[in-house]
Amino acid sequence: MSQYRPWCNPHAISYSSTVADFVAGRRSPRDLLEDCLSRIAARDAELKAFVRLNPAAREAADAAGERYRRGAPLSPVDGCPIGIKDIMDTCDLPTEMGSPAFAGWQPAYDAACVQALRAGGAVVVGKTATTAFACGGPTVTTNPFDARRTPGGSSSGSGAAVGAGMLPVALGTQTQGSTLRPASYCGTVGFKPTHGVLDMRGVHPISVTHDHLGVLAGTLADAWRIASHLSLWQGNPGQRFLDGASADFPEPVQPRRLMRLYTRGWENEADAATRDAFETFVQGLASGGVEIIAREHDPRIAQVEALLDDAFSDRSLEITAYEMRWPYEQYAARHGKLIEPRVHDRMAQARAMTADRYASLLLEKYVLKQKVMDLSADCDGFLNLSASGPAPLGLQHTGSRTFLTHATFLGLPAFSLPLLEVEGLPLGVQLIGKPQEDGRLCAMAAWLMSFNR
Amino acid sequence: MSQYRPWCNPHAISYSSTVADFVAGRRSPRDLLEDCLSRIAARDAELKAFVRLNPAAREAADAAGERYRRGAPLSPVDGCPIGIKDIMDTCDLPTEMGSPAFAGWQPAYDAACVQALRAGGAVVVGKTATTAFACGGPTVTTNPFDARRTPGGSSSGSGAAVGAGMLPVALGTQTQGSTLRPASYCGTVGFKPTHGVLDMRGVHPISVTHDHLGVLAGTLADAWRIASHLSLWQGNPGQRFLDGASADFPEPVQPRRLMRLYTRGWENEADAATRDAFETFVQGLASGGVEIIAREHDPRIAQVEALLDDAFSDRSLEITAYEMRWPYEQYAARHGKLIEPRVHDRMAQARAMTADRYASLLLEKYVLKQKVMDLSADCDGFLNLSASGPAPLGLQHTGSRTFLTHATFLGLPAFSLPLLEVEGLPLGVQLIGKPQEDGRLCAMAAWLMSFNR
Repeated sequence: MSQYRPWCNPHAISYSSTVADFVAGRRSPRDLLEDCLSRIAARDAELKAFVRLNPAAREAADAAGERYRRGAPLSPVDGCPIGIKDIMDTCDLPTEMGSPAFAGWQPAYDAACVQALRAGGAVVVGKTATTAFACGGPTVTTNPFDARRTPGGSSSGSGAAVGAGMLPVALGTQTQGSTLRPASYCGTVGFKPTHGVLDMRGVHPISVTHDHLGVLAGTLADAWRIASHLSLWQGNPGQRFLDGASADFPEPVQPRRLMRLYTRGWENEADAATRDAFETFVQGLASGGVEIIAREHDPRIAQVEALLDDAFSDRSLEITAYEMRWPYEQYAARHGKLIEPRVHDRMAQARAMTADRYASLLLEKYVLKQKVMDLSADCDGFLNLSASGPAPLGLQHTGSRTFLTHATFLGLPAFSLPLLEVEGLPLGVQLIGKPQEDGRLCAMAAWLMSFNR
Repeated sequence: MSQYRPWCNPHAISYSSTVADFVAGRRSPRDLLEDCLSRIAARDAELKAFVRLNPAAREAADAAGERYRRGAPLSPVDGCPIGIKDIMDTCDLPTEMGSPAFAGWQPAYDAACVQALRAGGAVVVGKTATTAFACGGPTVTTNPFDARRTPGGSSSGSGAAVGAGMLPVALGTQTQGSTLRPASYCGTVGFKPTHGVLDMRGVHPISVTHDHLGVLAGTLADAWRIASHLSLWQGNPGQRFLDGASADFPEPVQPRRLMRLYTRGWENEADAATRDAFETFVQGLASGGVEIIAREHDPRIAQVEALLDDAFSDRSLEITAYEMRWPYEQYAARHGKLIEPRVHDRMAQARAMTADRYASLLLEKYVLKQKVMDLSADCDGFLNLSASGPAPLGLQHTGSRTFLTHATFLGLPAFSLPLLEVEGLPLGVQLIGKPQEDGRLCAMAAWLMSFNR
């Protein structure tokens, strides 16, 4: 087994560590924005991470600077440059959903997440590229570490922009693996909080029981800060707030016991180099005092894995198809070939389903989640790969979702941490937590990020 | 005490009772639509119930007729003429929210409820007038029984159109009293199902924990049929379906025991004629074998009333203000005086609230609901007025919401049944049920509607 070699992204930039400079007047939000814009000017022709830039960004950054000069920043995200995935409504920039059916479409008002960010003084730098409707189609965006490779998707532009240091942070969404996969391939932190704690209103839907708002960031602190701000601003009305939401980064907490998962994908997707990188990392954790439990120690863990893989079965796609009827059945009828064949297929699948079938699938999901929670009650969280390997070659596919669907289907909070390097490319470690324990999970993620560095 | 004299709306039309004629070829959806359009041509200049008519309605009705001729109607609502409140997105008709800030605004796709109706073959006749953003402002729409009076609001156009027999049925929404109040004033059936069972996506929000989709109809059967179709088509994904949803009208069920409520409004809003009409009706029910329980029989009922009135306190408005931040804070900032002063006031109120305060209000609401359910476990439902009297004079206010906020705040299913006549004008009896027992409630409403007729 090789020695653990942590990934280091040479481009990553941090907002959180810059705020003290804003306060002290050593640097301004405009300075940080100009750094981002220079990097964009240098690299975006190749990366195609942005669909469009916000012409009012400099003005917004200057207004933030003025607030810092007065000693009155609006919030812990004031002056933070951020990218907005182009399925999120913006009142002043078209929102094209990555689809020709929405070319030039201009929403009337900002999505809830965008409003919360702007209300806190964050600077919308631009709209980032997405696959069509955040589904699994191709992307023109390229990987910041190898232009022949995919950046992952569907939050392709957000992943590439953050991975290339064009931005400290960008918003994404995750219905199967759309935040954590680009995070893994682009060497960034990805965070998908517990399902329902962040407000998705004004974000184009796929499946209401699967859709999560996510954050991609150069640092864990920035990912946590943005998610916390979104929750503290208004939460997701009627739902719970993000556990532990705070502008302050939590103190790192060493996990006591983590369950290492060998779910589907380990056998036939992950190659030897990938397996080796992960094993080496996990061995290091064990040597460092984290108890790692796995199927070879406890037969209940194989049971958990079987249940999780069962979640990954057609059940998830069937629920998704049913929930996609609104609004995709309209698009299928009206836009014909502008809509991908797979969407038409899903609509045919949905039309064949009954309400009873759908209700029984939701019940099965609920029961499955309870069983997994019962069987894992004595561990602090789960460890797995974020992807079956580093970014694959080609732009026609945004990579496998095999490792990411479990946590998404069950609505568990999950981080992708850019901790592994395989063949010179980044690969994420996925840390999955218990529902509504996002704050504790972030503290453990912070410990993992600082371990061995 | 006077003799009970049931209200009879001479204009009311019914879709459900016409379907057999469609099937038998004695009448067509186009015939029914032309009846509606003639009535609209005759009366809408005075009533101003419609913001705009759908130029494609005749084409849609003809397509429905063709399906009946082929013996293949799409659903139990195929060919049903319906009005859509103008806060509901329509892909082919502007959606102006009753506000100059949205003049001419064209959404990209239909709201979920509109898609479900069109997918079932219903014929969108037009968009119906609403007060600005379905809040409590003035309306230009007039009452079909006296043009000097309000039709109620905010679903003003839907109430007036159905009350005047321009339509058999129209969609409304209810955040405080916006469906059942116009139903009461316009002599129609109003139905607001259990909170959350109908899909509100694509309907402009006020308060996610208060907003209900509602139906106004000339007959109870049509109200039930439309609500059932909306639920059966796709439900509200991730939430429960409408209890008892079915195209078939439930068999009337005599309530065993109803709790008659003397909540706030009885003392200082309802006048002698109104009180007398309601008392006479309730006496009739008691003579007919329904056990009526009230505060004079059982001190626990005064407790229930006090709890319900407590719900009607500032708590409901405070929650609403907080939840309105998205998107109203954008409007307040961007549109200034185009937005009513009360919205600006709410935004100031919301900004002064903390997330903790909001979370504690939701918890209080939950506890209050449990207490009310515990104290009323031995009755089948609640009886109250739908409004403090018949439609008041003037168009500056859409009437009092005092009697309607209880069921809305707690998310209980409720019907307004056009059973009373006061000074020649209609007035509704409000029948409120237990959560998720909508089907049973409809069966009891059917019994009340047929009682004494």
